[in-house]
Amino acid sequence: MLIRSGQARTRAELIARTGLSRSTVTQRLSELFDLNLIVSVGDAASTGGRPPSFLSFNSRAGAVISVVLGSTHMRVALLDLGGEILAQHVEAHVMSGGPVATLERVAAAVDGLRDDAGIEPHPIWGCGVGLPGPVEFASGRPVSPPIMPGWDGFPVGDWLRDRFSCTVLVDNEVNVMTLGEREQCFPGERDLVCVKVGTGIGAGLIIDGRLYRGAQGSAGDIGHIYVPGHDDVVCECGNTGCLEAVVSGRGLARRLREAGLDTHSSRDVVREAQNGSQIAVQVVREAGRELGLVLAGLVNSINPAVVVLTGAMTAAGDNLLAGAREVVYRRSAPLATRNLRIVTSTSSDKAGIVGAATMTVDALLDRITGAEAQPPSSFATATSRAG
Amino acid sequence: MLIRSGQARTRAELIARTGLSRSTVTQRLSELFDLNLIVSVGDAASTGGRPPSFLSFNSRAGAVISVVLGSTHMRVALLDLGGEILAQHVEAHVMSGGPVATLERVAAAVDGLRDDAGIEPHPIWGCGVGLPGPVEFASGRPVSPPIMPGWDGFPVGDWLRDRFSCTVLVDNEVNVMTLGEREQCFPGERDLVCVKVGTGIGAGLIIDGRLYRGAQGSAGDIGHIYVPGHDDVVCECGNTGCLEAVVSGRGLARRLREAGLDTHSSRDVVREAQNGSQIAVQVVREAGRELGLVLAGLVNSINPAVVVLTGAMTAAGDNLLAGAREVVYRRSAPLATRNLRIVTSTSSDKAGIVGAATMTVDALLDRITGAEAQPPSSFATATSRAG
Repeated sequence: MLIRSGQARTRAELIARTGLSRSTVTQRLSELFDLNLIVSVGDAASTGGRPPSFLSFNSRAGAVISVVLGSTHMRVALLDLGGEILAQHVEAHVMSGGPVATLERVAAAVDGLRDDAGIEPHPIWGCGVGLPGPVEFASGRPVSPPIMPGWDGFPVGDWLRDRFSCTVLVDNEVNVMTLGEREQCFPGERDLVCVKVGTGIGAGLIIDGRLYRGAQGSAGDIGHIYVPGHDDVVCECGNTGCLEAVVSGRGLARRLREAGLDTHSSRDVVREAQNGSQIAVQVVREAGRELGLVLAGLVNSINPAVVVLTGAMTAAGDNLLAGAREVVYRRSAPLATRNLRIVTSTSSDKAGIVGAATMTVDALLDRITGAEAQPPSSFATATSRAG
Repeated sequence: MLIRSGQARTRAELIARTGLSRSTVTQRLSELFDLNLIVSVGDAASTGGRPPSFLSFNSRAGAVISVVLGSTHMRVALLDLGGEILAQHVEAHVMSGGPVATLERVAAAVDGLRDDAGIEPHPIWGCGVGLPGPVEFASGRPVSPPIMPGWDGFPVGDWLRDRFSCTVLVDNEVNVMTLGEREQCFPGERDLVCVKVGTGIGAGLIIDGRLYRGAQGSAGDIGHIYVPGHDDVVCECGNTGCLEAVVSGRGLARRLREAGLDTHSSRDVVREAQNGSQIAVQVVREAGRELGLVLAGLVNSINPAVVVLTGAMTAAGDNLLAGAREVVYRRSAPLATRNLRIVTSTSSDKAGIVGAATMTVDALLDRITGAEAQPPSSFATATSRAG
């Protein structure tokens, strides 16, 4: 949206940038003023006649709820429309109690945040959710999620929409983290891959400026790509030699156990690597190379400008990144790596929360401004019920 | 474009579908009528008042030039704006004479087609070119193309624009073929990968409905992805074990030579396979599996709906396709292959020519209808000079 990004600040600039007629721009601006989304902030230099007003996006016109469910924690936050966190709540939580118990905890946490923070004056516009497994984005339902027993096909989006009376968007956790990484650390980047290496492994793809979900919503699901040299390692998916079975926190803990260390989780692996265990450092480096081989395939195939590594295993030190870089640069076409940056995330834990909010705000604004060819009816319903 | 695809047939439907104001739609239609791009074809059923006219895209308003340069042949054609071939010329040609000699041949062939076919009444709107190597799309220049000595950085787009006095778009041959495959065999498909297996190997990606070129224009360049088991095979790029070194026509000819056959080219490999040589069939099948491993990575990563195999090696029989399918289905996540189709191209040799024309017409129409945020000045200049 041109006003939000600062690319157009007056009515005349909007008309010039969009090619829309004056009457169309005036009508759309009027809708945005009605929603309190746009405010006038002083006058631009006059060029004769009535001085034009500067238009500014009012990020405090409403708030969105962000929910990120991980394998061990849930994180719930309220953010303004500019992605600023207004209030946040984190608690230890496992998904094994099934969807209703978890979503009741989410709803209670949201109620708590709204009470505590005096957020009520901000109408809730929408809710963005990240789940630790495959999600059918259009319906907001998990699809055979391996670490979420009882969640397969559960209408997470519908359940929360009924509870919060607002538009709810549900996606997998890596996709929302990818949006948050871009928003926080690479604003405006059009070609970015974000790879999470934690208990599992997955990626999110930003392609030509938009998150790409693929034909069935499984784009970025790189955890089951074959890595040579580990044909004896059986993955949870039933195949052997999958990236996730070999390089994830679980996979590394197993490899270190076989070498005699007492490692059972990502955290154990990180501890051993940070303590300077020679074998842990070696195995993490080798895992970086194996990850790099898969990333080289991705870099050759889709030619991103940025690859960001995130997730628990990045805390094991620079060896994961170094190993990945080594093989990506060795095994990719020179043109594809000419300006490529491969970096570790610096966005701390906020990326998921910010990304879920960004996903929601972008979708709502697309709907209002007509970038999506849908009438804004469901949005209007949601805000009037929430307001 | 809504009129071209038949999604909107009257002024009222256009207003409803685009959300643009009546005055904006009227102004844009007036420009299109001026260019002879839109014609009225009879009246729709009246709903009272003046009956609305059906609008139709006039594909004969102009013509585009298509040029596809391969490693052994050049193909030049004139097509109407709907992608119908008006006249075509094919000749044996090698690229080693350098760019000027080749482009002079192209220009002479185009002149011949225009004279022969009485095409003059169609103004030439633009020219689309496919080259057998990496191309910087924005500047229309080849970038270190391995099989085009003397072409590195040559301004192919500028040279032809000066010669033909029209907009010229230059891309690599596989991208152009990908657009042609979609246009001819999968109209409207939003998520498609086209893989050419010939003397070399490359892919084109259609992502969310548009050809994706990546950050540096090298998206789809899968020929140098690592294939396990061939670390002794040196590729032209200097690495070992690249897909192209192992599975291309050249690679297969080498493997069959080592097995005692007299094969030196893609054509020799195809001949042996078609003649039922046991060893040729085995090697092609194994090459299909190796190709499948790379395609499985692509399917896991970007989750296309369709993978099309094309290029000379597809003539070696169904073993290439069968081997590829075998491994893609074995090594991809079930969700990614649920509705996936993996097929061999049926578009014969026309895909490149049609794709180069489609690329050109789409870009010109985007520019006229404002889908691209550029003024149509260069287009106007080109048509007025050509007309």
